Amino acid sequence: MLTYELKKQPGVPLYEALYRCIRRDILSGQLRAGEKLPSKRALAENLELSKVTVEAAYNQLLSEGFIRSEEKRGYYVEAVEHGQSASPTPVAAEAQAAEFPVDLTANGPAQFPFSVWSRLQRKVMLDQGLQLLSPMPNRGCLALRQAIAAHLAGFRDLHVSAEQIIIGAGTDFLYNLLVQLLGREKCYAVEEPGYQKIRQIYQAAGVSCVGARLDREGVRLDDLERASVLHFSPAHHFPTGLITPMRRRLALLEWASAGDRWIIEDDYDSEFRFNSHPVPAMQSLDRAGRVIYMNTFSRSLAPAIRISYMVLPPALMERFRQSFGFYSCTVSSFEQYALAEFLTQGYFEKHINRMRKFYKSRRNRILEELERCPFAERLTVLEQDAGLHFLVRVDTPRSDGRLTELCAQAGIRVRCLSEYYSGPVPKTAQHCLVVNYGGVREENIPNALMRLTQFVGNGRLQSGENML
Amino acid sequence: MLTYELKKQPGVPLYEALYRCIRRDILSGQLRAGEKLPSKRALAENLELSKVTVEAAYNQLLSEGFIRSEEKRGYYVEAVEHGQSASPTPVAAEAQAAEFPVDLTANGPAQFPFSVWSRLQRKVMLDQGLQLLSPMPNRGCLALRQAIAAHLAGFRDLHVSAEQIIIGAGTDFLYNLLVQLLGREKCYAVEEPGYQKIRQIYQAAGVSCVGARLDREGVRLDDLERASVLHFSPAHHFPTGLITPMRRRLALLEWASAGDRWIIEDDYDSEFRFNSHPVPAMQSLDRAGRVIYMNTFSRSLAPAIRISYMVLPPALMERFRQSFGFYSCTVSSFEQYALAEFLTQGYFEKHINRMRKFYKSRRNRILEELERCPFAERLTVLEQDAGLHFLVRVDTPRSDGRLTELCAQAGIRVRCLSEYYSGPVPKTAQHCLVVNYGGVREENIPNALMRLTQFVGNGRLQSGENML
Repeated sequence: MLTYELKKQPGVPLYEALYRCIRRDILSGQLRAGEKLPSKRALAENLELSKVTVEAAYNQLLSEGFIRSEEKRGYYVEAVEHGQSASPTPVAAEAQAAEFPVDLTANGPAQFPFSVWSRLQRKVMLDQGLQLLSPMPNRGCLALRQAIAAHLAGFRDLHVSAEQIIIGAGTDFLYNLLVQLLGREKCYAVEEPGYQKIRQIYQAAGVSCVGARLDREGVRLDDLERASVLHFSPAHHFPTGLITPMRRRLALLEWASAGDRWIIEDDYDSEFRFNSHPVPAMQSLDRAGRVIYMNTFSRSLAPAIRISYMVLPPALMERFRQSFGFYSCTVSSFEQYALAEFLTQGYFEKHINRMRKFYKSRRNRILEELERCPFAERLTVLEQDAGLHFLVRVDTPRSDGRLTELCAQAGIRVRCLSEYYSGPVPKTAQHCLVVNYGGVREENIPNALMRLTQFVGNGRLQSGENML
Repeated sequence: MLTYELKKQPGVPLYEALYRCIRRDILSGQLRAGEKLPSKRALAENLELSKVTVEAAYNQLLSEGFIRSEEKRGYYVEAVEHGQSASPTPVAAEAQAAEFPVDLTANGPAQFPFSVWSRLQRKVMLDQGLQLLSPMPNRGCLALRQAIAAHLAGFRDLHVSAEQIIIGAGTDFLYNLLVQLLGREKCYAVEEPGYQKIRQIYQAAGVSCVGARLDREGVRLDDLERASVLHFSPAHHFPTGLITPMRRRLALLEWASAGDRWIIEDDYDSEFRFNSHPVPAMQSLDRAGRVIYMNTFSRSLAPAIRISYMVLPPALMERFRQSFGFYSCTVSSFEQYALAEFLTQGYFEKHINRMRKFYKSRRNRILEELERCPFAERLTVLEQDAGLHFLVRVDTPRSDGRLTELCAQAGIRVRCLSEYYSGPVPKTAQHCLVVNYGGVREENIPNALMRLTQFVGNGRLQSGENML
């Protein structure tokens, strides 16, 4: 039985959400040609939707020829070329696009060096053979830890030993490990605004969290009184893009050094920077050994690859050795060795450089489109030279909810800055769109902006309101 | 600087442990020919060993030609053919064997279908292309969950929906997830004796644990009074091999149904069974929806592949959906799709059948060797028709510690049943060797047993004591 988790999306009626899910599965081949769809009643019950909603979704699929209806027998999937074909790329892209023509919430990447990766995987199996089957240190294989250490030295001017590095299957896992390492009784400060996910993970791990508000220089020290662990991204705050200046970094290091306090430096995204040089990492300024550096290849290489890592200060690594030796490594040996080769042979740097160029041109194209659009004078782009997004302030009396709703109706999926607050949202943070362009298909942008414009005065706007 | 975690092994002097680590790294190529070893003093300081210990290790390596000493310059790695070569198998095996000629504590596997796996990985990249880069459901990709559901139905007579399955990077990760799902305030019962690791993981996750002792039929109900979660392996208890009979299974299900209680059925190893049919899983008897079924491919396929899964009762899956949607999947998409193909194309079943034959002959050969050895009449093999180990009771006045020490001196690494108790060890559980033959090289067994015999009366036994 088809089962979907239909997320409530502002401005997207349920029937449309359901229609998109089924359409996506048909395009991706998860629903095969000739397969019978569940009856409207059965599906409505299974998804706890009204039969009318399911009916509306089926009708849309019928009208677009994704399914056919057979007298007294039910609905069947039509033959559509799908992602299982040898050249799936356009279809796969289509499948993604089926969600929203312009999705400003998706994270890239748009490209991945499949052939190189595939070759390295074969090489690893040939070179390592049965060694791949022998036990792996729970911190990850030495070859990868050494490759990461070399990468950090060359690319981030971070000089650490492979012995300080722990490899894990994604940052979610490493956050949980850190809670066990630093202690569950501690209070963890997370950025406000920031990724709500980080707060959710810490809370699920059973620790108390406080929000650390930001001023122009980053995390406010006066919000750290209760906290003894600070999790933040000095190189590039999400979503404001703020880069913490040296003065504040030193102040925060001083805070951490005064007691049993720790700083978790989340350096995600630091690879994508366009004009300036990378900001030196906190970890490289840390004399007292209070900074834990974290980064992930899931973001810089591909979400498909669940390899993240953290660099522990020696004291913490000793604690890990002594108390957590029973854990097994969470990352496949095959991919650890493949990534080690990918790094040491210089493919990673090549990939990053290629993607940086790619993202830069995409970003510029989006900025041009925004300048060109009819209501450009209502938009102020808050540019930051880091990461894969920027903010656009919209001069409008409308609520952020209504704003995203209108965009959604025009086929633009976007979030507002206000959605990244867990507490009250300051006036200055309202009417700001977070333009996350890593995963967007920019060729769709002109049309979407056009549609957004056309809404002015048409039926889909509430009577009396104009576009923005 | 070389850093090793030198585990204390009964009967293995520190210098020998260090010598083995360095030798292993030379054989595996992690230490390359011509590489300079740290000075004895530096290494001694780094490892917190006495200089004498390091000296002894270096001397042994010198005498065996793994390193050379250069006047006034230090020690250098000699050129040894190692695992980086195109045909690494014997060397890799040698590298493993360097630890102990006969290691009865290692878990296999001895074989892995590298070429098939490598081909499937290429196929996945070709078929899926950019789809591999689009977001993955946090439960794991549908294709793999469907393949696992089909596998469980055909192989384990378990009929579950792909929607109930959660994929995770190893069971350690899933245990931690379960604690968040079931609640940290609950008391978790683990088998006594049993894998100490399981208790350690639950305790690290911040929950209280009690040991549930075993009688002839398995976990004792009267030990579950305080507990509301039971983690156990009804199909094959480790290390006793006990199979929980139907009567006790039903009693435990009744226990679980009477309140907010849960049973975690850890079905690891159930693939390896030689004569009888597999015992039906608890989950298939569970009417009340209180059983969480778990298994892992790290054990049945290769530890290199960190893919485990659990089958949640619908109510728990709903809880997961509602409360843990923020987590990302921890397993690489590439390997999820590759494993899905591996399962659906029947390679997994072929592999299991091949390995079952392989292990069976290995087990029989080991049993023959034991019958043939000079002190056979002192040995009673406690055979169980499941899993990759059996117990050998030794008729001896010696302590278990001294027993494993003697074996270690003969080059046999083995653990005693008593090592799997966290509490007091009953008399009946003493003098039992846990013969874990998954990773052993049986061709070394005759020699090892011979050496064990020769110790009788030679200098390495304490005066007055005979072999066993």
